[in-house]
Amino acid sequence: MKYRIEKDTMGEVQVPADKYWGAQTERSRNNFKIGPSASMPQEIIEGFAYLKKAAAYANHDLGVLPIEKRDAIAAVCDEILEGKLDDQFPLVIWQTGSGTQSNMNVNEVIANRAQVLKGFEIGEGEQFIKANDDVNKSQSSNDTFPTGMHIAAYKMIVETTIPGVEKLHATLSAKAKEFKDVVKIGRTHLMDATPLTLGQEISGYAAQLAFGLKALKNTLAHLSEIALGGTAVGTGLNTPKGYDVKVAEYIAQFTNHPFVTAENKFEALAAHDAIVETHGALKQLAVSLNKIANDVRMLASGPRSGIGEIHIPENEPGSSIMPGKVNPTQCEALTMVCAQVIGNDMAIAVGGMQGHYELNVFKPVMAANFLQSARLLGDACVSFDEHCAQGIEPNYKRIKELVDNSLMLVTALNTKIGYYKAAEIAQTAHKNGTTLKDEAVRLGYVTPDDFDAWVKPEEMV
Amino acid sequence: MKYRIEKDTMGEVQVPADKYWGAQTERSRNNFKIGPSASMPQEIIEGFAYLKKAAAYANHDLGVLPIEKRDAIAAVCDEILEGKLDDQFPLVIWQTGSGTQSNMNVNEVIANRAQVLKGFEIGEGEQFIKANDDVNKSQSSNDTFPTGMHIAAYKMIVETTIPGVEKLHATLSAKAKEFKDVVKIGRTHLMDATPLTLGQEISGYAAQLAFGLKALKNTLAHLSEIALGGTAVGTGLNTPKGYDVKVAEYIAQFTNHPFVTAENKFEALAAHDAIVETHGALKQLAVSLNKIANDVRMLASGPRSGIGEIHIPENEPGSSIMPGKVNPTQCEALTMVCAQVIGNDMAIAVGGMQGHYELNVFKPVMAANFLQSARLLGDACVSFDEHCAQGIEPNYKRIKELVDNSLMLVTALNTKIGYYKAAEIAQTAHKNGTTLKDEAVRLGYVTPDDFDAWVKPEEMV
Amino acid sequence: MKYRIEKDTMGEVQVPADKYWGAQTERSRNNFKIGPSASMPQEIIEGFAYLKKAAAYANHDLGVLPIEKRDAIAAVCDEILEGKLDDQFPLVIWQTGSGTQSNMNVNEVIANRAQVLKGFEIGEGEQFIKANDDVNKSQSSNDTFPTGMHIAAYKMIVETTIPGVEKLHATLSAKAKEFKDVVKIGRTHLMDATPLTLGQEISGYAAQLAFGLKALKNTLAHLSEIALGGTAVGTGLNTPKGYDVKVAEYIAQFTNHPFVTAENKFEALAAHDAIVETHGALKQLAVSLNKIANDVRMLASGPRSGIGEIHIPENEPGSSIMPGKVNPTQCEALTMVCAQVIGNDMAIAVGGMQGHYELNVFKPVMAANFLQSARLLGDACVSFDEHCAQGIEPNYKRIKELVDNSLMLVTALNTKIGYYKAAEIAQTAHKNGTTLKDEAVRLGYVTPDDFDAWVKPEEMV
Amino acid sequence: MKYRIEKDTMGEVQVPADKYWGAQTERSRNNFKIGPSASMPQEIIEGFAYLKKAAAYANHDLGVLPIEKRDAIAAVCDEILEGKLDDQFPLVIWQTGSGTQSNMNVNEVIANRAQVLKGFEIGEGEQFIKANDDVNKSQSSNDTFPTGMHIAAYKMIVETTIPGVEKLHATLSAKAKEFKDVVKIGRTHLMDATPLTLGQEISGYAAQLAFGLKALKNTLAHLSEIALGGTAVGTGLNTPKGYDVKVAEYIAQFTNHPFVTAENKFEALAAHDAIVETHGALKQLAVSLNKIANDVRMLASGPRSGIGEIHIPENEPGSSIMPGKVNPTQCEALTMVCAQVIGNDMAIAVGGMQGHYELNVFKPVMAANFLQSARLLGDACVSFDEHCAQGIEPNYKRIKELVDNSLMLVTALNTKIGYYKAAEIAQTAHKNGTTLKDEAVRLGYVTPDDFDAWVKPEEMV
Repeated sequence: MKYRIEKDTMGEVQVPADKYWGAQTERSRNNFKIGPSASMPQEIIEGFAYLKKAAAYANHDLGVLPIEKRDAIAAVCDEILEGKLDDQFPLVIWQTGSGTQSNMNVNEVIANRAQVLKGFEIGEGEQFIKANDDVNKSQSSNDTFPTGMHIAAYKMIVETTIPGVEKLHATLSAKAKEFKDVVKIGRTHLMDATPLTLGQEISGYAAQLAFGLKALKNTLAHLSEIALGGTAVGTGLNTPKGYDVKVAEYIAQFTNHPFVTAENKFEALAAHDAIVETHGALKQLAVSLNKIANDVRMLASGPRSGIGEIHIPENEPGSSIMPGKVNPTQCEALTMVCAQVIGNDMAIAVGGMQGHYELNVFKPVMAANFLQSARLLGDACVSFDEHCAQGIEPNYKRIKELVDNSLMLVTALNTKIGYYKAAEIAQTAHKNGTTLKDEAVRLGYVTPDDFDAWVKPEEMV
Repeated sequence: MKYRIEKDTMGEVQVPADKYWGAQTERSRNNFKIGPSASMPQEIIEGFAYLKKAAAYANHDLGVLPIEKRDAIAAVCDEILEGKLDDQFPLVIWQTGSGTQSNMNVNEVIANRAQVLKGFEIGEGEQFIKANDDVNKSQSSNDTFPTGMHIAAYKMIVETTIPGVEKLHATLSAKAKEFKDVVKIGRTHLMDATPLTLGQEISGYAAQLAFGLKALKNTLAHLSEIALGGTAVGTGLNTPKGYDVKVAEYIAQFTNHPFVTAENKFEALAAHDAIVETHGALKQLAVSLNKIANDVRMLASGPRSGIGEIHIPENEPGSSIMPGKVNPTQCEALTMVCAQVIGNDMAIAVGGMQGHYELNVFKPVMAANFLQSARLLGDACVSFDEHCAQGIEPNYKRIKELVDNSLMLVTALNTKIGYYKAAEIAQTAHKNGTTLKDEAVRLGYVTPDDFDAWVKPEEMV
Repeated sequence: MKYRIEKDTMGEVQVPADKYWGAQTERSRNNFKIGPSASMPQEIIEGFAYLKKAAAYANHDLGVLPIEKRDAIAAVCDEILEGKLDDQFPLVIWQTGSGTQSNMNVNEVIANRAQVLKGFEIGEGEQFIKANDDVNKSQSSNDTFPTGMHIAAYKMIVETTIPGVEKLHATLSAKAKEFKDVVKIGRTHLMDATPLTLGQEISGYAAQLAFGLKALKNTLAHLSEIALGGTAVGTGLNTPKGYDVKVAEYIAQFTNHPFVTAENKFEALAAHDAIVETHGALKQLAVSLNKIANDVRMLASGPRSGIGEIHIPENEPGSSIMPGKVNPTQCEALTMVCAQVIGNDMAIAVGGMQGHYELNVFKPVMAANFLQSARLLGDACVSFDEHCAQGIEPNYKRIKELVDNSLMLVTALNTKIGYYKAAEIAQTAHKNGTTLKDEAVRLGYVTPDDFDAWVKPEEMV
Repeated sequence: MKYRIEKDTMGEVQVPADKYWGAQTERSRNNFKIGPSASMPQEIIEGFAYLKKAAAYANHDLGVLPIEKRDAIAAVCDEILEGKLDDQFPLVIWQTGSGTQSNMNVNEVIANRAQVLKGFEIGEGEQFIKANDDVNKSQSSNDTFPTGMHIAAYKMIVETTIPGVEKLHATLSAKAKEFKDVVKIGRTHLMDATPLTLGQEISGYAAQLAFGLKALKNTLAHLSEIALGGTAVGTGLNTPKGYDVKVAEYIAQFTNHPFVTAENKFEALAAHDAIVETHGALKQLAVSLNKIANDVRMLASGPRSGIGEIHIPENEPGSSIMPGKVNPTQCEALTMVCAQVIGNDMAIAVGGMQGHYELNVFKPVMAANFLQSARLLGDACVSFDEHCAQGIEPNYKRIKELVDNSLMLVTALNTKIGYYKAAEIAQTAHKNGTTLKDEAVRLGYVTPDDFDAWVKPEEMV
């Protein structure tokens, strides 16, 4: 490979000749060979592209950056957002905990690429634009990285997670209506209980997701606050007056999301409680979805030795050895995602709790876990919706058979003959393998006509 | 010990003669010898007392319970709330996951105590009031236990957690104002950084708690929804029309908190996402408080070999072997509470995700963890506030010494001479153990007068 | 209440007149009103009693404590171990993170009680025995508390957890043998699969516990190392030569467990990885037990609308509203314990990871979570064993019906006619609601005789 | 893109014409668009390559596979291991929880590639080798995927994790010896305490890693057990006699690691407690490493306003805004890895606890989290070792200044003048800002000569 020499405040470094990045990126590549390369999420790089462009605009408006530098920086940011420079960001999550090196990666790539667009060669030095003094003007890693995090996180939640969950919620709500009269046995403690309708059962799932969506949206205000303008420790040192508000306006404009400047910049650098807060809502959704997916696969279990009250789509051959087997694979993918999100919640808590003084240095790990959870939940809800939930159909025959046969219909007699006699009827029928009616009459507690009048599953729901 | 014989639908059981509880409570005592006895939180029992009384009132209003039974039940509920029957609830958390046995414990105690108040002896049978048919009328464990959980949880949050956190928040806000002009060194990555004021630093802590309180309050609407009226599976079987709304009104009236009936009872029995949701906010507060308490003890560390920028109250001798040692013990208690809350969050997630069909049977463990977290956080904030935060005072001499000596003041020169020359000044001063001014002048980058004009810590904050 | 005045190095404190504790205990009571009082686990206090007695013996042997003081200290330690002084330890978990205050609580109680046994009145001052100079001789909180933790933890694991898990393991092993020929349908993905025997299925549970027990025992060597002799920072300052080895020998002798002095005292004070390590094995057991208990309740589900392949004991009426309902309550208690243990594992990790310099100050929270997990797991295994596992019986009729009806027996044809034709047979039978044999013959792939010869569930296990 | 038509038991599917995978892989691609494509870890694919080759050899030896098929399968497996077919495995973690689809992906690629090597075109059908009947012979996804997991996991632990941790351990052990006489102040509760040597302090870190390595190695026996031979539910249906032992021998031979057949195959399919167990040890290491990295960065903090007792290498410019700043970036990368590992432990527990009946269907998520943790820990230890630990040097001047100035040296006087007088000396010196000796003499408790004789830091360690 061919190399060129780049310099930073610590001296010279060999950099691949054809890459836009500079000395500090290369140092990080060499010093942090931890896991696969380029693991820093692409969404963070895009977040940086938005904020670098916004900073250039704000700096120009406030008189500290000439228009030709603003436009040069913005042009490269647009290229990044178009995916044209994807191979220029080789750094890993497991670098400095402030993300300084990724900030410098972006600064260096923008500066060098802008020079090239201006007609210079890479490696001629910062003749037109300087990575630190121009691209990073009025910024610090300490306020840019959390800003990039919030941009990436907010976008992922609003563009992927919420639409995915809402799509599944819509399907479940529709199914709840569709099956509102399908009377089936209820189960508590996994044991037979009084009846309800399949629509009621599914309405509970829909309600869970509705609560989860509400909880998630409750967190967005905090997440929409961005740190930019705080610079190194939150004081805003080296920024022009009014910069923080203006740069947030540009970010809002460029991303089309309602970002605002953080009211307290010290909090915004030293803590990432907004990430903790929103991910808490993702964890809640994971808890809900795990329950829903579990129920669906239990209700669909069989075909002959399980519960079998619903059919779900048969999407793939289910076994490499058992011919004809079909499995609830979407439920499995979704519950695996839930396990991941619950684990990620802990990684985020562990990172979030360990901020020190003016800076939390668990930013990249918090961002990476957050973005993974938000994307996986959104994607998995869409997948589960399209390949499973939409295809849920009652197995009417099985449902009727089970409800007709149930002993817990006896509960309808509580208010007629009291809990103790009702219990005696159920226990006797259970012991003898008979029906409730048989035993109710035989024990002399109810007449056949009364039994028929009182014990109607369709009136118990 | 003397015993009497009690019966339930499964047969006879020996019960301590002087206790109000009956057969089902005794079965549970015998069958679940797991951990210390009576571990079911007292707050849950109190929640039951509120709801049993409310149910009696609603049942009476709706014509299914005579007034003398209503009043008898209510009288015992009041005794429970007054703490007069504390020794009547011997059951453990680790029982059936629906809490049925604690529901029956309450039903049995109310029934037997009511009989005694009416003039019967315990053990004469349910001559006046029946545990199942009267006390538990229009109820199931499946809707009473989650209702008890929500009452207990909501009360603890509103009466203990929020006031505790708000008290600490008020102190930190006041300290932030009080020390708003105390310029000190900032620290990022634990390393010296540009200055800020002690007030600014503390304002970040206050902002964290303000966000946490907002997040916590956002969850209260969900938590205020109660399951009562859903009975066994959410359908409301065996309840009179209008009962769910009315019973919630009575609970709101008796507790003086805005409880409402759950819109979807299926969700309210089968999932406890409201508990997951609110505890998520408690976890966020734990993450915040861990950071704050860590900072306080690091800033107060010393007295001679630490940071030593603040003084905190000296409350106890700190060592059984090192005379004169004083430690940041309130920080330690608080961070231990944070560790517990973070662990509890996982226990709650694990319980919450495993509901099956119409019922989640991790109710007691979720309730117990929730109540512990909510109480500990509230208590610990009060303790930390009174015995530590209120006494935080700057060590002015140490603060001034450190800020004056700092190399990171060089950042103020970035906009004057550029990042690279500024870095050279700082690195040279670091290497030579000299001051920034010395090296800035010696390197010929700044005149002494310019240095003094440009590098003013008090203007960098 | 009547008070007396006690003093420590910080001044005077009012102490309840009739209590043996002194000034430092009282300060802690006043300064840490967090959660219920006296939450510091009793087992820790007992651990202290063992180590204080051992220290007195070692100090005497090494010539730094007169025999009458040794015997006086030992006498009070014996009283503590006999439970005679249970009301003398009012402190909470949420105190200083080194547990210094509980160490002083023990020192003060021993000193004052010893004085009283000698004929003095409480409050006359330390005329005979001094809490710091005698009872705490050659000790620091920093080495005593971790020693107390290890004594308590080791004892709980060896005396409660392991016997409890082994008891359940023995039952499952016996059931595995007993049911080794009961052929039943297997289930993978919750769906019907090829058959196995009930004994084989249960043998998997037993194997899980055997691995868990092995993993748990692997950790005991680390846990048997005790910190005593390290004093304040691990150097052993102020201890006589040979003290650490000797005091460990006495602890081993008094507890009858193989405790040894820690090879590296710095690790033993600054980190509690032994607690993390052993609790990791408890978490593994919780993971195993959750799976086992879940399977048992699913296999026992019904009675008419579930799987119903096994019967488990009916221990309590299962519902306050549904008469005759019986639930898998032992499974529920056990899985709730598992959720708690998994949460506790996180609390312990969060505490364990945050040691600073020479001391980890999350000792009490780590100890409390550990002891809770160890006890609950042991108790819950015994409870589950006695009230559930021992009573597991096959429902032969149901088992036979399901296995005979299964489509996955087709797998036996793979090696005869290939996967694709076998799949076609199964799918056709599924679609038509017919038997495998019907379709195998009708499709012309197998003769009736071959089918009978090849598809034998009892030969597929 | 050009496509060809492939078939499976559910019908026809369009597959990219130039890819070796078949219908089932393509179905999975289409049905599981969750997160980035090809997220299934490469190490799992390699594990499959080993086991497919081993199965072919064992099948041949036992007379159920002709030698030309064996060799054809083995040849493709070798290509996979050489990385020549990396673009043939497009599936994601978030598929069926048994990993069936990745098993089929491997089966299909091997079969089609073998056909091509034999001279056929892709798409001509399975004329020479069949994916299910030959490549998957004597196998099921249910035993192959866990076998692939164990191969991948074991190799990563033994080849990456352990060497990485051992390398760091060796450095810390060497530093412990090198600095064994560097007397420095100790710190407990972050507060000044009695002295120890820097070597002693570092020896505690080394001891933590030694315990962690021992714990990790203790788990390897369980991890070396492989499920292969259990097929669908653990019974070994459709495998020739002796196959399980033989195939394990081949795997051991091909991988050069001591794999053995699992004693209980039911456990090996239905539970992945070995993964839980080994990852528990990784979590323990994460807890240890977090403490170590935290200490290192606190000890190195400064340069002028921190602790500053050690120097660590200056690897990169530390700030994009603060010139000359150097940060403990390796500590940050390592602690972020620790946070990830602790989170992953929870994801693995959540997956591990939810097995149902004969199969745990959280295999891919457990495998992915495990492999990430194992690799990150190994890599991060190497990185931390090379770029930080090896370069740790004492700041002798600072160390001496702090130890000489310390008040806690007073502890040496305990055994001479008693704890109370010693405390008075320390408190007075603290209050007056004087030295211990000044106050000891002024208070009349010690003569100057005695003080010098008794208080010697170098004799206190």
